[in-house]
Amino acid sequence: MTPLRFGVNYTPSDRWFYSWHDVDWRSTERDLAAVAGLGMDHVRIFPLWPVLQPNRTYIDPSALADVRRTVDIAANQGLEVYVDVLQGHLSSFDFVPSWLASWHQGNMFTDPAAVQAQADLVSAVHAVLADQPAYRGLTLGNEVNQFSGDPHPSPMRVTPEDVDVWLDRLLRAVPAEPGRLRLHSEYDAVWYLDGHPFLPRHASRQGDVTAVHSWIFNGTAQRYGADSPHSHRHAEYLIELSRAFATDPERAVWLQEIGAPGNVLSAEQAVPFARAAVRNAADSQALWGVTWWCSHDVDPALGDFPPFEHALGLFDQTGRVKPLGRAFAEVADELRTVPVAPPRTAAIVIPVDGRDTPVSRAALGPGGSVFEEWVRLAEEGQRPTMVTSTVANDDLELGRRGITTLHRVGQHASTAYTSISDDALVPAAEAASR
Amino acid sequence: MTPLRFGVNYTPSDRWFYSWHDVDWRSTERDLAAVAGLGMDHVRIFPLWPVLQPNRTYIDPSALADVRRTVDIAANQGLEVYVDVLQGHLSSFDFVPSWLASWHQGNMFTDPAAVQAQADLVSAVHAVLADQPAYRGLTLGNEVNQFSGDPHPSPMRVTPEDVDVWLDRLLRAVPAEPGRLRLHSEYDAVWYLDGHPFLPRHASRQGDVTAVHSWIFNGTAQRYGADSPHSHRHAEYLIELSRAFATDPERAVWLQEIGAPGNVLSAEQAVPFARAAVRNAADSQALWGVTWWCSHDVDPALGDFPPFEHALGLFDQTGRVKPLGRAFAEVADELRTVPVAPPRTAAIVIPVDGRDTPVSRAALGPGGSVFEEWVRLAEEGQRPTMVTSTVANDDLELGRRGITTLHRVGQHASTAYTSISDDALVPAAEAASR
Repeated sequence: MTPLRFGVNYTPSDRWFYSWHDVDWRSTERDLAAVAGLGMDHVRIFPLWPVLQPNRTYIDPSALADVRRTVDIAANQGLEVYVDVLQGHLSSFDFVPSWLASWHQGNMFTDPAAVQAQADLVSAVHAVLADQPAYRGLTLGNEVNQFSGDPHPSPMRVTPEDVDVWLDRLLRAVPAEPGRLRLHSEYDAVWYLDGHPFLPRHASRQGDVTAVHSWIFNGTAQRYGADSPHSHRHAEYLIELSRAFATDPERAVWLQEIGAPGNVLSAEQAVPFARAAVRNAADSQALWGVTWWCSHDVDPALGDFPPFEHALGLFDQTGRVKPLGRAFAEVADELRTVPVAPPRTAAIVIPVDGRDTPVSRAALGPGGSVFEEWVRLAEEGQRPTMVTSTVANDDLELGRRGITTLHRVGQHASTAYTSISDDALVPAAEAASR
Repeated sequence: MTPLRFGVNYTPSDRWFYSWHDVDWRSTERDLAAVAGLGMDHVRIFPLWPVLQPNRTYIDPSALADVRRTVDIAANQGLEVYVDVLQGHLSSFDFVPSWLASWHQGNMFTDPAAVQAQADLVSAVHAVLADQPAYRGLTLGNEVNQFSGDPHPSPMRVTPEDVDVWLDRLLRAVPAEPGRLRLHSEYDAVWYLDGHPFLPRHASRQGDVTAVHSWIFNGTAQRYGADSPHSHRHAEYLIELSRAFATDPERAVWLQEIGAPGNVLSAEQAVPFARAAVRNAADSQALWGVTWWCSHDVDPALGDFPPFEHALGLFDQTGRVKPLGRAFAEVADELRTVPVAPPRTAAIVIPVDGRDTPVSRAALGPGGSVFEEWVRLAEEGQRPTMVTSTVANDDLELGRRGITTLHRVGQHASTAYTSISDDALVPAAEAASR
């Protein structure tokens, strides 16, 4: 059995992702040496889409070379590297190339020429890294489901069927290779927002693993408290929730983003939250690994970030390990050697339609009846997972999943889920003016 | 007396403005040597705003250094250099930094923090060039009035009073220095589009000279023909039109952009158009100089440009002078040595309100009664200029301007003016789908 992976989402200490314009390689070396020194085994990296592909038909070779050099530096530190391609969205900022904006406004998910361009870019990023063994996976992009509908201010409308096609097309642009993952990532609207065109089945069935991003500023911490079991178990819950929609009961789940946001956690709460959330997540047999958001604090001199983004790092801006960094490293050390969690046998049933879309995604989110009942059972020590109503009616499938107890709950939603448009993700000045 | 200046808007042959990410300096040297070799005396250059200032509070020193190096290379070729700062808009593409987009959607003209950031950037660009004698002027940005209202797809709403303040604030960010110009530039909605918040008085009174951009795809060529006097005199007309709104009768006018767009001109019509349009423009005593759009054809491998943008260069993509380039160089040689044009004594009266805003800007544009009457008088050899109705009622001011004959015309508009949203400036594929 492969031990759990522990790594970081790499936010360069020097000028954040703006540094892609003109990378200070000594800074990259220092940053990644520090990450390796903390005992991390991997990093996830984020080139900027407009830098990689400023024109629909032009991919910048020097930008590709910068990605490669970053991966090589990480490799020299013994780190594995996972690259995201379409950024896209990062920490409240959208980086959309000019060929998809204003007079050239287009739909990245459905315009054939735009999709071809993205497939070309995904292929090109893979190709420039392919002979580097430390390169271990490619994520299509960071949470680009944000661009697909409400509450994005300029949504690119797309149907779930369009998403099927888009994901397949882009994932196929990368050849299947042993030991390398091809995947995609979404923010949690995919699980909690009714009407959102990215669906649980996309997350749990397309690509080689499921990626989940756990952010408790989504209403969880606000409603239940930062120290609540709901907050401490949110990542664990997402992992189990995603398994309900997987057709492969063995499918791995990557907790690709989790962080301790200061808008809902006090400084004192961050370390206990990190320890508890990661330990709880590791109590899922499906967990592939945990990638903390993020490596380095964002320079306070950079403007317009949501304030808490400046303090999410395991390292401060000067490269010093923060207490949070030590805590994450310690819990990583502890969990790398524990056996895989035993299977879960109790499951809450999630009512779904004929395409396995939840009848109420709001019931799954913070404030929703499924989430609350799941946390209640978890706190009772029942180690609940979830299954869809389709699976619940299929004894063979229940057997395959090892489920022996089913719990049915009403589908009560609440308005607790705040999605991405909440003031958690807009600058304080804007939030204050609302 | 200073001879007329002739130069080019510098479009790098290598990867257009996308090259700012990673400039090939030998290519810049070749391009600018060719421009100088054609007898040009200046270039206008266009860094990209998101490259210069990726974050509201961060100006990239390496991007500033690239601007400086470009200016130094031009200087070594004996060229004077004028730099535009806020791009902004270039050849149908908008480059808006992420801190003004989507979740951070803001108004560049009125948000205090955004205006401060622009003033900082303008200052920084000036500062990095200040000790280079070849640096001879700074334009705030290229046609950013496009972002200010209809028909822009995501207009940043602004009033004429806001524009006053914005222009003053940004122009003041550059110190007044002898031999250096501080100015701003607009596309022709400022003259022809009723309701547009940038007004003739902004163009003709703020900054050290008036900049006019003459593009006959604005309805002129479509309505009257590419060989018509209307097309051949459009630039001359704009120069004289701008003078009507100047409070200083001696104010110079820079024909900062003029080109021969292939969507309305055949290959055979381009050279005669260039000769005639430039000669006619030089028949204005106010003309400061002419800057052709553009230096180099845009690589056909780059996608989504309006098709004619690939062929506007005086040089082809490999650096060979095109017949158009030779023609412009010849007419430049011819006009550098002719005396300043004599004053104009006949004027058409433009009815204006109490703030000197035209009662009908549509009457001034292609298809409008003022434009048509002005061309008719010009073709009769009367060398007409224009005055506002305010000036027409002020004998002292008429005398100061040397006007002895007034013509009054009805204010009839037409729908000929097509502004920037016309299919001239969208890709053929999009235009076809309309």
